[in-house]
Amino acid sequence: MEYRISNRLAALKPSAIREIFKATDNPSIVPFALGNPAPESFPVEVIRTFTKEILDENPAVALQYGITEGYAPLCALLRERMRDVYHCGREGDDLIVVSGAQQGAELAAKALCDEGDTVLCENPSFIGVLNAFRSLRVNLKGIPLHEDGLDIEALEQALRTEQRVRMLYIIPNFQNPSGITTSLEKRRAVYALARKYNIIILEDNPYGELRFAGEDLPHIKSMDEDGRVIYLGTFSKILSAGLRVGYVLGPAPVLQKMVVAKQGEDVHTAMLSQMIAARFLAWNGFAAHLERVRTLYREKCGRMLDGIRRYFDPRITHTTPQGGLFLWCTLPEGMQLMDYCKAAIAKGVAVVPGTAFLPDTQGQSQSFRLTFAAPSEEQIEQGLRLLGGIPLQ
Amino acid sequence: MEYRISNRLAALKPSAIREIFKATDNPSIVPFALGNPAPESFPVEVIRTFTKEILDENPAVALQYGITEGYAPLCALLRERMRDVYHCGREGDDLIVVSGAQQGAELAAKALCDEGDTVLCENPSFIGVLNAFRSLRVNLKGIPLHEDGLDIEALEQALRTEQRVRMLYIIPNFQNPSGITTSLEKRRAVYALARKYNIIILEDNPYGELRFAGEDLPHIKSMDEDGRVIYLGTFSKILSAGLRVGYVLGPAPVLQKMVVAKQGEDVHTAMLSQMIAARFLAWNGFAAHLERVRTLYREKCGRMLDGIRRYFDPRITHTTPQGGLFLWCTLPEGMQLMDYCKAAIAKGVAVVPGTAFLPDTQGQSQSFRLTFAAPSEEQIEQGLRLLGGIPLQ
Repeated sequence: MEYRISNRLAALKPSAIREIFKATDNPSIVPFALGNPAPESFPVEVIRTFTKEILDENPAVALQYGITEGYAPLCALLRERMRDVYHCGREGDDLIVVSGAQQGAELAAKALCDEGDTVLCENPSFIGVLNAFRSLRVNLKGIPLHEDGLDIEALEQALRTEQRVRMLYIIPNFQNPSGITTSLEKRRAVYALARKYNIIILEDNPYGELRFAGEDLPHIKSMDEDGRVIYLGTFSKILSAGLRVGYVLGPAPVLQKMVVAKQGEDVHTAMLSQMIAARFLAWNGFAAHLERVRTLYREKCGRMLDGIRRYFDPRITHTTPQGGLFLWCTLPEGMQLMDYCKAAIAKGVAVVPGTAFLPDTQGQSQSFRLTFAAPSEEQIEQGLRLLGGIPLQ
Repeated sequence: MEYRISNRLAALKPSAIREIFKATDNPSIVPFALGNPAPESFPVEVIRTFTKEILDENPAVALQYGITEGYAPLCALLRERMRDVYHCGREGDDLIVVSGAQQGAELAAKALCDEGDTVLCENPSFIGVLNAFRSLRVNLKGIPLHEDGLDIEALEQALRTEQRVRMLYIIPNFQNPSGITTSLEKRRAVYALARKYNIIILEDNPYGELRFAGEDLPHIKSMDEDGRVIYLGTFSKILSAGLRVGYVLGPAPVLQKMVVAKQGEDVHTAMLSQMIAARFLAWNGFAAHLERVRTLYREKCGRMLDGIRRYFDPRITHTTPQGGLFLWCTLPEGMQLMDYCKAAIAKGVAVVPGTAFLPDTQGQSQSFRLTFAAPSEEQIEQGLRLLGGIPLQ
């Protein structure tokens, strides 16, 4: 039979990255394209211990249905950590567990945006969340990103002129794909503008714990005086991506609607995953583990920056991230991005073309994303050497 | 600030059952309202073994991102089982893993239905999926359910007269909430009508493995000659509900769009959960375990039917399920359902009023749902005795 696909999905393509992920299952390809955390960052030994303890002590909870809001001890630990460590969350805020921060972003837009509403975002931004927004048929309007964050004038211009703007989606720390961090001054400016134009800020912070250079900056959520910031956190980059556990801290009336929507999507997040996450947070080795992960990424990023300096034509510019998994390279004017990316894959190196991250699917890009997280140190060296061999015209 | 909730969620209430679930966290309440499988049905010992093996042998896969379509070995085992045991799936069909069959239903409607399209369903039907459909702003049209399944004349009448009918949602085995099983004849009639009126059938079979009386009947999917049946299966009732693993067998072009939508919702289903499910399917104790679970429910259902005969006023009628978790009781005309349910909770027994399961939220019901799965045998006895003490006028 002929299948009539809904309007919301008819034009939507699978994430280019996840498609590349499938293509690069080939272990001989250098995986600079993945968004995967470093496998050596997972605390496998304690996950084994936690899992055994959970299934020995509390199998009936781990294996049974739970409430949609999340495993109560995990919610309590997260609320406490967000308050004590990050000064986030006040009266009127609530916290729920979701199946990855991706689900949190999707649920927030589902609860707050109608078809035809506008969401502002960084240009470029994270393709997974952009696609989730597209499936809700909201308009995406990208705001240029500078080295210290959004172009504030362009942001105000968009707030003044775009129709039905509901929300700004922003990744302030070590942004995906650019590796850029929003400065303190710009965090304040973003919050002030959101207030002036009465929109919601969706603050996505998947990499915030992975700072390996510079000073921690306050979350935008910590500046939130009137409940307009919805904060997304995740365990994917510090514990395990495969367990699919994230969380949302935000105004209770919005979170209540997100819970209703989550019931319809997956009822609740896997209990075993949530219970592992709760033990991980309460673990007395937690802080030392984070430090170990930061050191790992500091070294891998350093190696990638060294390799770039050694092998790349200096006309290729790049960001210098202070944390996270990614950096962003830009080809000189006149170079064809897709030719470069195809030449890379022909040499056995997968990179993600910047076009994948554009809010405007018709837009142009001269940039590509590299990750230093998933590849080994040898792969970083080898991959950059191979990329360096691609002639620039 | 004031929060403007999207049109799709503004009117949607949390599932009455999940709300009752929260209310009945109180262990002194007899839990006849839950949809939980019996905790003693979970094969805890082998789950411990599988989990240890997975984390010892393959932690890098269990803890890392996976592809959205699902863990390949699990998909292969499921395709094989669906083909060899149930004669389901042919050329043009594909199989994906989802985070519970609930997600499968939501994704199917998301891929196939636009706002204002109509989905037909049994009246009453499963509230979780009905709410997911509502969040997509489709119209629900309930078809009366008789003891052997849908009223076929009413179904054809609806297909003839309703506007923009895209899909029929049906639970043919031991339906939730009614416990009713669709006869072979009616399965054939349903498929023939779907073909005649060119609609999709969404066949949800969460309880199919739990038959404890009568003969197995073929899935509607096994009759599917032209790729119009999307089949939903789950591990929630035979392995663990908390792991959140379900699967979808259906036409590849539709599943491809469901995969795109799933990327936006949760990227993929928890890897550890999927890997446990794969080992469970390959386990040489699998068949014996299913037989043990069926025996458990046969005994619990028998005990509930005995108690009903012993304690209930014979003017309360009830279904006699051949499997699953639920039976459905109907009060005599003139009795107020909500008075009865409130009297039940006052006596310490939670039941779900039938109104929760109506496709038409303004509809009336004289029925309530009981489960024999979650309560212990003592609770079944005690709960029915207490319900029997509620005066009928």
